[in-house]
Amino acid sequence: MRIEILNTGTELLLGNTLNTHGAWFGRELFKLGLRVARQTSVPDGEAIREALTETLGRADAVIVTGGLGPTSDDLTREITAEVLGLELVQDAAARRSLEAFFALRERPMAEANLKQVLTPIGAASLPNPHGTAPGVFIPPHLAGRSNAAVFLLPGPPPELYPMYHAEVAPRLRVLAGTARPPAMLELKFTGIGESDFHAGIDARLAAIHGLEYGYCAHIGEVDLRLIGTADALAQGRMIALERFAPLLVSDDGSSLEQTVVRLLGEHRLTLATAESCTGGLLASRITDVPGASAVFTHGFVTYANQAKQDLLGVRAGDLLTHGAVSEPVARQMAEGMLAVSGADLAVAVTGIAGPTGGSPEQPVGTAWIAVAQRHGATRACRVFQPRNRRDFKQGVSQAALDAVRKHLLECRETPR
Amino acid sequence: MRIEILNTGTELLLGNTLNTHGAWFGRELFKLGLRVARQTSVPDGEAIREALTETLGRADAVIVTGGLGPTSDDLTREITAEVLGLELVQDAAARRSLEAFFALRERPMAEANLKQVLTPIGAASLPNPHGTAPGVFIPPHLAGRSNAAVFLLPGPPPELYPMYHAEVAPRLRVLAGTARPPAMLELKFTGIGESDFHAGIDARLAAIHGLEYGYCAHIGEVDLRLIGTADALAQGRMIALERFAPLLVSDDGSSLEQTVVRLLGEHRLTLATAESCTGGLLASRITDVPGASAVFTHGFVTYANQAKQDLLGVRAGDLLTHGAVSEPVARQMAEGMLAVSGADLAVAVTGIAGPTGGSPEQPVGTAWIAVAQRHGATRACRVFQPRNRRDFKQGVSQAALDAVRKHLLECRETPR
Repeated sequence: MRIEILNTGTELLLGNTLNTHGAWFGRELFKLGLRVARQTSVPDGEAIREALTETLGRADAVIVTGGLGPTSDDLTREITAEVLGLELVQDAAARRSLEAFFALRERPMAEANLKQVLTPIGAASLPNPHGTAPGVFIPPHLAGRSNAAVFLLPGPPPELYPMYHAEVAPRLRVLAGTARPPAMLELKFTGIGESDFHAGIDARLAAIHGLEYGYCAHIGEVDLRLIGTADALAQGRMIALERFAPLLVSDDGSSLEQTVVRLLGEHRLTLATAESCTGGLLASRITDVPGASAVFTHGFVTYANQAKQDLLGVRAGDLLTHGAVSEPVARQMAEGMLAVSGADLAVAVTGIAGPTGGSPEQPVGTAWIAVAQRHGATRACRVFQPRNRRDFKQGVSQAALDAVRKHLLECRETPR
Repeated sequence: MRIEILNTGTELLLGNTLNTHGAWFGRELFKLGLRVARQTSVPDGEAIREALTETLGRADAVIVTGGLGPTSDDLTREITAEVLGLELVQDAAARRSLEAFFALRERPMAEANLKQVLTPIGAASLPNPHGTAPGVFIPPHLAGRSNAAVFLLPGPPPELYPMYHAEVAPRLRVLAGTARPPAMLELKFTGIGESDFHAGIDARLAAIHGLEYGYCAHIGEVDLRLIGTADALAQGRMIALERFAPLLVSDDGSSLEQTVVRLLGEHRLTLATAESCTGGLLASRITDVPGASAVFTHGFVTYANQAKQDLLGVRAGDLLTHGAVSEPVARQMAEGMLAVSGADLAVAVTGIAGPTGGSPEQPVGTAWIAVAQRHGATRACRVFQPRNRRDFKQGVSQAALDAVRKHLLECRETPR
């Protein structure tokens, strides 16, 4: 069953409003075992006619959002009826609901609102308890001009989402017949690139019967998406982990920061952060996770060298000899943070975000990361991420979180 | 000039990734005096062929994103060449850049990466300093099968955005010919909502001849966009500032954090931050600004109450009596930060991000902000932002930056 989404609204094309409907429908339809074949956005008004006509020629079902309001640029209902050659009439039940909607709110109903209860003859008006725009369901073959089922739905999410669940999803289930939702698995990996997957496991994944797979790259992360039968997923998962298990962040959609917070909780360890070049982003990512307060106690942003000395006890001589972006300084920051915070674990980051401040030995994009643990050896590593300032911060914070993740996985200490 | 955007990526249709490209292109093209006529998303692979063929028949320029990676599901380059009937050859300069990219990072180049430098004969390969996928520009009429100009661009924003600015925007300017971008002015305001503008100045803006205007709301910020003649812009600007001058963040596109860093520099003052609920985001936003190191010295994330006492000297009694989210605690955090850091100015934030931890007196979404200055009175204010955790952090950090901005504007002290 080929389903297309058509989102209408000039604000979407001007970029004033981010289109979140496309992704939302993707997730919801997937739960029914269905896919979105295509998503299209067009401005309000006549552009809808062209796009709708094309879509009706390709799809088995079309879901249109927006343009059901009472104002002059709300034309979805009228254009759809014209394209299909259907006559619009007032739906009596929809009119009573609309009158009740205004009565409940003790507001007068404007004349303009009446156009909202117009419905093509033979179509169903879909109740909207949360707003003035009822939806419309036009069954397949009603028009003769199209075989597709058409849903017209209001744009605002507080009206759209409940209407989808109550009126659209049940009808799609019937239209789709016996289609059973396939299983999906998302494996997040860090510390490698998309091409490493290609070289490493792509051919083996391609050989699995009934498996659909794909990659999605982010800064410091690659997500491997597996879709298919339970057996195909298990095989795909095994192949990926045989090769890349130490780099696995999660297999349940969890972000790296969520994984780190979970692992800290399991080990009953607390963490403190000492940041220079990431400037607070590392702490901010950790505190994005609900419940982080149970494992995260302190974060320092020691941007100035003096702050590194005063607060973390970094030796002035080492700053002078090795520079602020160096292994000894990263180690002393982590160990100093451990001492000052009383946390079980400390991670420190020092680097050169740029655009200025680089040198031939330490070019812009260089960072040192150190992880110190009470009663354990401090480890340090160097990363090089020559990116713009914000992406550098994201990439280095990713590497720092990953250093903590690896440290926790290698912790031989039995969780307390 | 009719421009269409074609976004490719199965993750967009599955809803795993939110499509932000559509809105981004809308805003960028608008700056050139151009509009997006239609935006389409299709899955990776063969679906691109159908959508691209249709788009080429309608548009003067097509911008395609995604599918330029090294893996088997990256087919945009190959399908586009086929649809246009163009032969793909290795671009020598692109190959040298790719080899240099890997050499710089001290990583071996995989064989699979070589397909990324394939370019249709007669097309231009667009350099990608931030990733392995060069873009492609196919001039109009090159193929004979289409009159449209075609741009193939990488999907990841850190690669896409710089390539657009360096390679795409200048070519679009040429293609659009004499279409002169209208003048645009963006006024950023903080501390009010879109509806305040609507009620306050909308009717007066609508009366200005030759002015097109629009609002764009973000968390804690509304941008007023004015487009038109120099005279119309000046009139619109005056009307907006008559009413909302104290809330103006910038009229040159600067973010609030950029404005704060600039003002600190002008006043030759240094700033330190003490954060609880924003968890490092406030420091991270400040350090997003190049040159922040000249004015920002220290940041503490004192997530635990004990950390507030130990590091900032917050009194245990006040934590007990008033709670961590209270005016006295915010004030003591700011004053403690001033003492420990030696900075000229300190801003402190304490609040309840949720989802748990609220109480009837201090519900989730409450925060206290304090600004302390050496030899000056400490000021505090309460904000209430009942949002999800990440949006709460964004909104409260916005309010904290704005408190610093207001403090600096009201500084009677002559800049040193």
